[in-house]
Amino acid sequence: MGNAKIKVGILGATGTVGQRFILQLSCHPEFEIAALGASASSVGKPYKEAVSGRWKQAQPIPAHVCDIPVNECEPEFFKECGVVFSGLDSKPAGPVEAAFREANLRVFSNAKNYRRDSLCPLIVPLVNTDHMDIVPHQQKQLSLDRGYIITNANCSTTGIVVALKALEVAFGPLDQVMVQTMQAISGSGYPGVSSLDILDNIVPFIDGEEDKIEWETSKILGGLKDNNTAFDLHADSPLKVSAQCNRVSVIDGHLACVSVSFKQQPAPSPEQVADALRKYQCEAQTLQCHSAPKQAITVHEESDRPQPRLDREWQNGAGVNVGRIRKCPVLDIKFVSLVNNVMLGAATSSVLNAEVALKKGLLS
Amino acid sequence: MGNAKIKVGILGATGTVGQRFILQLSCHPEFEIAALGASASSVGKPYKEAVSGRWKQAQPIPAHVCDIPVNECEPEFFKECGVVFSGLDSKPAGPVEAAFREANLRVFSNAKNYRRDSLCPLIVPLVNTDHMDIVPHQQKQLSLDRGYIITNANCSTTGIVVALKALEVAFGPLDQVMVQTMQAISGSGYPGVSSLDILDNIVPFIDGEEDKIEWETSKILGGLKDNNTAFDLHADSPLKVSAQCNRVSVIDGHLACVSVSFKQQPAPSPEQVADALRKYQCEAQTLQCHSAPKQAITVHEESDRPQPRLDREWQNGAGVNVGRIRKCPVLDIKFVSLVNNVMLGAATSSVLNAEVALKKGLLS
Amino acid sequence: MGNAKIKVGILGATGTVGQRFILQLSCHPEFEIAALGASASSVGKPYKEAVSGRWKQAQPIPAHVCDIPVNECEPEFFKECGVVFSGLDSKPAGPVEAAFREANLRVFSNAKNYRRDSLCPLIVPLVNTDHMDIVPHQQKQLSLDRGYIITNANCSTTGIVVALKALEVAFGPLDQVMVQTMQAISGSGYPGVSSLDILDNIVPFIDGEEDKIEWETSKILGGLKDNNTAFDLHADSPLKVSAQCNRVSVIDGHLACVSVSFKQQPAPSPEQVADALRKYQCEAQTLQCHSAPKQAITVHEESDRPQPRLDREWQNGAGVNVGRIRKCPVLDIKFVSLVNNVMLGAATSSVLNAEVALKKGLLS
Amino acid sequence: MGNAKIKVGILGATGTVGQRFILQLSCHPEFEIAALGASASSVGKPYKEAVSGRWKQAQPIPAHVCDIPVNECEPEFFKECGVVFSGLDSKPAGPVEAAFREANLRVFSNAKNYRRDSLCPLIVPLVNTDHMDIVPHQQKQLSLDRGYIITNANCSTTGIVVALKALEVAFGPLDQVMVQTMQAISGSGYPGVSSLDILDNIVPFIDGEEDKIEWETSKILGGLKDNNTAFDLHADSPLKVSAQCNRVSVIDGHLACVSVSFKQQPAPSPEQVADALRKYQCEAQTLQCHSAPKQAITVHEESDRPQPRLDREWQNGAGVNVGRIRKCPVLDIKFVSLVNNVMLGAATSSVLNAEVALKKGLLS
Repeated sequence: MGNAKIKVGILGATGTVGQRFILQLSCHPEFEIAALGASASSVGKPYKEAVSGRWKQAQPIPAHVCDIPVNECEPEFFKECGVVFSGLDSKPAGPVEAAFREANLRVFSNAKNYRRDSLCPLIVPLVNTDHMDIVPHQQKQLSLDRGYIITNANCSTTGIVVALKALEVAFGPLDQVMVQTMQAISGSGYPGVSSLDILDNIVPFIDGEEDKIEWETSKILGGLKDNNTAFDLHADSPLKVSAQCNRVSVIDGHLACVSVSFKQQPAPSPEQVADALRKYQCEAQTLQCHSAPKQAITVHEESDRPQPRLDREWQNGAGVNVGRIRKCPVLDIKFVSLVNNVMLGAATSSVLNAEVALKKGLLS
Repeated sequence: MGNAKIKVGILGATGTVGQRFILQLSCHPEFEIAALGASASSVGKPYKEAVSGRWKQAQPIPAHVCDIPVNECEPEFFKECGVVFSGLDSKPAGPVEAAFREANLRVFSNAKNYRRDSLCPLIVPLVNTDHMDIVPHQQKQLSLDRGYIITNANCSTTGIVVALKALEVAFGPLDQVMVQTMQAISGSGYPGVSSLDILDNIVPFIDGEEDKIEWETSKILGGLKDNNTAFDLHADSPLKVSAQCNRVSVIDGHLACVSVSFKQQPAPSPEQVADALRKYQCEAQTLQCHSAPKQAITVHEESDRPQPRLDREWQNGAGVNVGRIRKCPVLDIKFVSLVNNVMLGAATSSVLNAEVALKKGLLS
Repeated sequence: MGNAKIKVGILGATGTVGQRFILQLSCHPEFEIAALGASASSVGKPYKEAVSGRWKQAQPIPAHVCDIPVNECEPEFFKECGVVFSGLDSKPAGPVEAAFREANLRVFSNAKNYRRDSLCPLIVPLVNTDHMDIVPHQQKQLSLDRGYIITNANCSTTGIVVALKALEVAFGPLDQVMVQTMQAISGSGYPGVSSLDILDNIVPFIDGEEDKIEWETSKILGGLKDNNTAFDLHADSPLKVSAQCNRVSVIDGHLACVSVSFKQQPAPSPEQVADALRKYQCEAQTLQCHSAPKQAITVHEESDRPQPRLDREWQNGAGVNVGRIRKCPVLDIKFVSLVNNVMLGAATSSVLNAEVALKKGLLS
Repeated sequence: MGNAKIKVGILGATGTVGQRFILQLSCHPEFEIAALGASASSVGKPYKEAVSGRWKQAQPIPAHVCDIPVNECEPEFFKECGVVFSGLDSKPAGPVEAAFREANLRVFSNAKNYRRDSLCPLIVPLVNTDHMDIVPHQQKQLSLDRGYIITNANCSTTGIVVALKALEVAFGPLDQVMVQTMQAISGSGYPGVSSLDILDNIVPFIDGEEDKIEWETSKILGGLKDNNTAFDLHADSPLKVSAQCNRVSVIDGHLACVSVSFKQQPAPSPEQVADALRKYQCEAQTLQCHSAPKQAITVHEESDRPQPRLDREWQNGAGVNVGRIRKCPVLDIKFVSLVNNVMLGAATSSVLNAEVALKKGLLS
């Protein structure tokens, strides 16, 4: 790559995740927004008009994006894009993303559709960017020389798996993980959660979410096998994960109470765990990617942190916050974890995955 | 007792719990409010004036209580009371409750001070009213013929221990319990939680709360031993309880995500668990106590219940609500539990304990 | 009428207002629920099933209503109903209510469609039940011997017009009224307001609401003219009303800041105003209607009342709460007013109007 | 001034306003934080420790401020400071600020104590920086050659007076102003508003607030007279201002519904008003002060803006947002106004006032 920025496209540009892509990419040093796609009702309008009444960000629409015309989500309108980010809902995401890949475009998707696909990596950029090594196999299987799909994880999975990875790096494989989440309303999009459901209330259920955490965690923490042509899900001795998910009255930031046990005993002490989390470094950091946080995991000392409102914006929401590391009377260690679900939990993950792909030569 | 109601006193009458005692007792068939005690600044004022600006209930002060004068928390002003309910803060509760007992008064306390005392029962009225059998021993040790202290549990302990008891009754002793709570702001009194701490936020820490759940659960679920003179805490094979407590933006109602494992294997199925919870009956019910709920545990079928705002007022907040009973990939069974922390979790427990005591002859 | 209750029907029974009708009428001394109507997707199901997932009340569905089958909103299914309450959305309400009237049924409607109709009275039951005198003219014009439509006002109009009426009764016509409302989310139905729009936020706009307040107030406070065949809107010297409406993060209860000036000067003092509001009595009270509040307007003495959460349930939400009566440096008098928008502001108004109609012989 | 930054001190540094001063000044091009003052319990501690548990900002404490020692609020510790910013509570502010001035220090205060003083200017930096012309008179009266006190306005006054000033500049003096505010909880400091008072609620009363708006507006909009030795309050034909203040469940951002009438008739049209607000420029802008917003008043076109959560961060909270400009049926024009109460409504005002003073030579 020379000095020119890589043109990028955004699918689902008027939605909640799409809006975050726009903010994230509007002054990016390596990428520039060149094409926007959305549903039929938006097509043909300049972005500002298409998103009117639905732009729910605390910053205005970036000036230079206002007049970009919105197109249909068809590959022909994104031909010149080196990367296409998908913030599509799961309903259209399946066929649209497949069509884009088929047209030899590289899709970095926040949708759930291809996360469990045996050819597509499911990558949390602070955890398993090495899974990009399966991309050549994906291309070969589909006879493509450029196109592929890379997915990122569900926002609540992302919030816990960074700490889990750091623990496995330091202390060997985990045995059991208990997770209870308290998830922000923005995770449900707009209009999403009705105010009558969440003011002075908690909804102890998020459709499909517990299963996502339980399943995605294994794929992300597993490695590749068979010469980078398959995912190792350790079907014989799986990591046991149990999740309980709740929707709470918080705008941004998913908090999770986590307890873990280690295969190797005696288990590390809370101090050893804190130290390991603090020292954890991922590939996106060593590659000096633009959107990578300085500190992958910030360990809080105060007894009552992390808190969503106070800690979610730290490092532009690109890192994970952990606190209250202590012994668990049932498993080994328990702690509290916070992820900014609209940043690292969504758009930042896709963008950071693309930045890593660029460094690895997967965008050339 | 003839037809006359038993005169009762309320300590800490102007506080959050005291206000609930007043609402609960203002038209009780067996008790009538005869004396109110509060701190120095309130003494000598009629109740309405003493509580002015601090009455935070959605109902007005009962008319006949408005003019009851507030006294110091000294036994001499409560001599004629057959029962004294204590809603005192833990700071004054220790010496005050002891002095009342010493003056041969019966104290039913919501304070934490005597919960771990080796002479005082810690009673959740839907669980272990049989622990009242230690009262004669308490009296004997202190050479009292009438006075005693009976405590009720912390609000969040109450919220989970009813279901745990029902499980032990049906399936034998539990082995492990994991609890994550999402607790209402009213649990912290008034002014209590600052709005800046809880709007658009969660505080993943409540001082002392996790320890209370872990400790109190064992005392409540344990039996009496040594001829009703001691509590059986099963020190050799204790029930392992791990709690994580969070303060959330809910006014009333503590929600808990619970996972349990059973000593006896194979563990019961979710259907068997639901059935056992539905059928659970406690002594307060069989004694037909006035404040006892018709259904100790309401099992919800809907996938997203119980919810604090929708279910906390059910049965006047005197029962427990359980839902989402399902298998746990780590322990055996997981579910969601809701308790109305200001009703069954506080005032209702004390009142119901006194009603049971009345039926058992402990008030004569 | 003998001892038998009057059978009533509810249109829009599964909606937010319909649910309130059901709670209000489920144990009414004069009315009994006999027929329920809702949209196509609910038809043929028992009510419990039809409303499943949308019942958002803090009380369970009344047991005897659970199995009532839901019908289409066609007059043939409501033939035996002496009263039909309409909680329909404005879209279907126009033709449906007209068809019901045409079928000689009496419709008491919470919808906005016929509020401005020159034949239909717009009645706030604590204010202008005398407007029912136009009913014979309505029937005559349409050649009906039983059927008619009586509407009640928009919830925010209701919240201010009771106090305004009391002031006009005591001090003669008002000249100017400035109103700023802070309206609860329940006023917008379910799912209604998105949580992303209202958590940590205010929306200073409610479509059509300001115009409703400005227009409806004049019709309600005006009298009948031309021998009870027309409404007197005082087109020549209209009451000037200016409203600013805001949606705020409150579940139930519309609060309004009101300033008024009087035509007759000098204006009354705050004390005189308080006295007049306290003494105000309406026809629904003198007729001893079942749902009428004991006190039409409760005047609060505390400097910080009324407050939605603390005062909305008072008198089962059937009265109006006023506080902070003081001089206005611009107009004459300013004060704060609270109405329970789901009770007096909606279902209670329709039911109370029907109760008045019964006493006046309009249901026989 | 050369290249060296001016050393500044902050009084009340651990409080809510003090924390905002620290964020605002931590990387200021002209000022550098040199001294911090707080109450006895903080004295002698490094700032990080002193503020521990009370730092409630969404950004961490700036690194270089963490170790600055906290002193008593005594002039001797602030001798080298060219400016002292006061975020003190009103209780200590009176004597402390006087002592600092007496010690020849320049105090820019957010406290209310000297706002009504006949020697001290009350300055909203986007409105009346010309009132600094009274500073020489203040110094002369007190025989000081450097010291003085400049105050800024109450946060809610600030929120409306910028638009009012712009209207007077364009259309001549206003006659009447009606204001109803919906104020954020952060305006009350920490712990401030109890969560039990504000969740699912509104408190229609803020002690002293309405009087502040009504009084301060006149001083700010008035000019200087008698050769810059007195404030012109137009006692004979005062601007009539009527305010109703409410506390609502919003974290930051005071919203106000405003109606105004003009002395000069016919009044301008909504379009003319919008145009005048958009074009309004203040001295802080023409002097190119660092913290001045680009646009003093942002006029929103959307029918439902400004909204606190979406618009309060715009321009770093240094400007005012206005929307919904339309005719008022009672006065002439009504509109909605939003100010970031913790930025322009507090710390930003003091800092911007000091920046203007610097440009005007009042810091040399």
